[in-house]
Amino acid sequence: MSTPSALLIADLAGVAVFAASGASAAIVKRLDLFGVVFVGFVAALGGGIVRDLIIGAVPPLAFADWRYAITAAVASGATFWLHPQFSRLRWTVLLLDAAGLALITVTGTVKALNAGLPAVGACLAGMITGIGGGVGRDLLLGEIPVVLRREIYAVASLAGAVLVAVFVRFGMHDGVALAAPAVLIFVVRVVALLRSWSAPVPPETT
Amino acid sequence: MSTPSALLIADLAGVAVFAASGASAAIVKRLDLFGVVFVGFVAALGGGIVRDLIIGAVPPLAFADWRYAITAAVASGATFWLHPQFSRLRWTVLLLDAAGLALITVTGTVKALNAGLPAVGACLAGMITGIGGGVGRDLLLGEIPVVLRREIYAVASLAGAVLVAVFVRFGMHDGVALAAPAVLIFVVRVVALLRSWSAPVPPETT
Amino acid sequence: MSTPSALLIADLAGVAVFAASGASAAIVKRLDLFGVVFVGFVAALGGGIVRDLIIGAVPPLAFADWRYAITAAVASGATFWLHPQFSRLRWTVLLLDAAGLALITVTGTVKALNAGLPAVGACLAGMITGIGGGVGRDLLLGEIPVVLRREIYAVASLAGAVLVAVFVRFGMHDGVALAAPAVLIFVVRVVALLRSWSAPVPPETT
Repeated sequence: MSTPSALLIADLAGVAVFAASGASAAIVKRLDLFGVVFVGFVAALGGGIVRDLIIGAVPPLAFADWRYAITAAVASGATFWLHPQFSRLRWTVLLLDAAGLALITVTGTVKALNAGLPAVGACLAGMITGIGGGVGRDLLLGEIPVVLRREIYAVASLAGAVLVAVFVRFGMHDGVALAAPAVLIFVVRVVALLRSWSAPVPPETT
Repeated sequence: MSTPSALLIADLAGVAVFAASGASAAIVKRLDLFGVVFVGFVAALGGGIVRDLIIGAVPPLAFADWRYAITAAVASGATFWLHPQFSRLRWTVLLLDAAGLALITVTGTVKALNAGLPAVGACLAGMITGIGGGVGRDLLLGEIPVVLRREIYAVASLAGAVLVAVFVRFGMHDGVALAAPAVLIFVVRVVALLRSWSAPVPPETT
Repeated sequence: MSTPSALLIADLAGVAVFAASGASAAIVKRLDLFGVVFVGFVAALGGGIVRDLIIGAVPPLAFADWRYAITAAVASGATFWLHPQFSRLRWTVLLLDAAGLALITVTGTVKALNAGLPAVGACLAGMITGIGGGVGRDLLLGEIPVVLRREIYAVASLAGAVLVAVFVRFGMHDGVALAAPAVLIFVVRVVALLRSWSAPVPPETT
């Protein structure tokens, strides 16, 4: 799982899932075909673009490797035409999204560590890779980003990123060291969905 | 047209038109003078700043060459004081905006190709140069970006960017190779306005 | 005041104040704990991150030096639990925010000049360092950025940035050359608050 091609496949799978989620949200807002594909592109690749700018990897992968853009465009376009079927698959989409969050957070954290970022910065960069696309999607659609309002989503991502950093700090770079954080993110996210966990909200002002 | 100074003049003309369009939108929202100039600056230079960050050209031209910022500020300020006259010139503004889109997309795509981006990435970067400022303008003003909602605008930009990439791929770098895509973008955009063409919207959910 | 450690302390103090301001705004919108800390992080570090990307300082300080992220997180978290007390301190918060604007604008402009940006670009980059976090905070919370709508805020920042550039141009790099622009920003901002100064709004369309 630490080979470049495994990272690539994990990345592209996450990109496709996130593009479908972005496209679905854009369809709900009645954007046109271009708008749906654009929001899908931002949802899928926005987090990785920000990460690449932060770590100085220019041009960002989304522009340097055509497979990223084409994957996002195809997944968004497919969602545009197939979304009535998707809307019956709410749980499938949520599970795929949790898997995408897990994969993209882990690969993002590893790339940030490989680029020489210190641990705290790499964990932040990994989390931004995971949640940044969703923040961009919601901003484009005129919403306060859902990840800031409720549910355990970013916290799951951050926990996984920290676990990656700990493993790498202790010299563990093998498949298990990357699979364990991904499983952690996925499980925390799914359990949070099943139990409707949320982060605490502010105490009322007196 | 492939000389640096021709690229500069085309760029600055596009900057002025986009700044006026951003300033006009900010005036409608009753922003103050600073807000109008800031939104004009973002509308004019936001797309190019993002492109420069993507291709690794730091500092971006908007910061490295004072003529860009001053052009945007003067055009925005002029719009602030003269806008009642502008509002009678709706078609003039739309035609100038179409010309700005054509010029900025073509120069953006050429810069991305010159920076070594592969064709797909360079076309995306060129389109982002063309539409990025308008997206930033609408986000600052609390709107879902108009380019995602209706009309043929980004698609015209992308078509022109693809034509630039095709010409350059076949070794054509002369004025015609740059003028033809610019004309394509301008004509598609103007015909779309005249005919009220739109991209398809999603099928209704059943 | 021109030593690295003085710049660091000024920077971190500004970060803490801006994080508290971002967290307070997020609490008003009833975001959860993660959302409050995230908005505080963006308000505190967003301007500096954009400046670092513009001047090519990657990874940005917010990711390269853990003290920035931790300062922002602690200040945001403290605001989350203590905000009922803060809300009785409106003037304290406004004064701290003016001080933060002064410190962060001056350090931002100096960093941009040191990175080789020409004067106009460095003043813009310094102002963006000062106001960028607030713009990001408001966008995340679904508001048109307050800095674009009313009050003398960005203009105070820009005036201080210009004064820094003038001093540096004439070879003055000592503490006074940095303290004077900071005092200028602080005084203009506070007087504008006391007198309810605003920038002009557009003339009515006829």
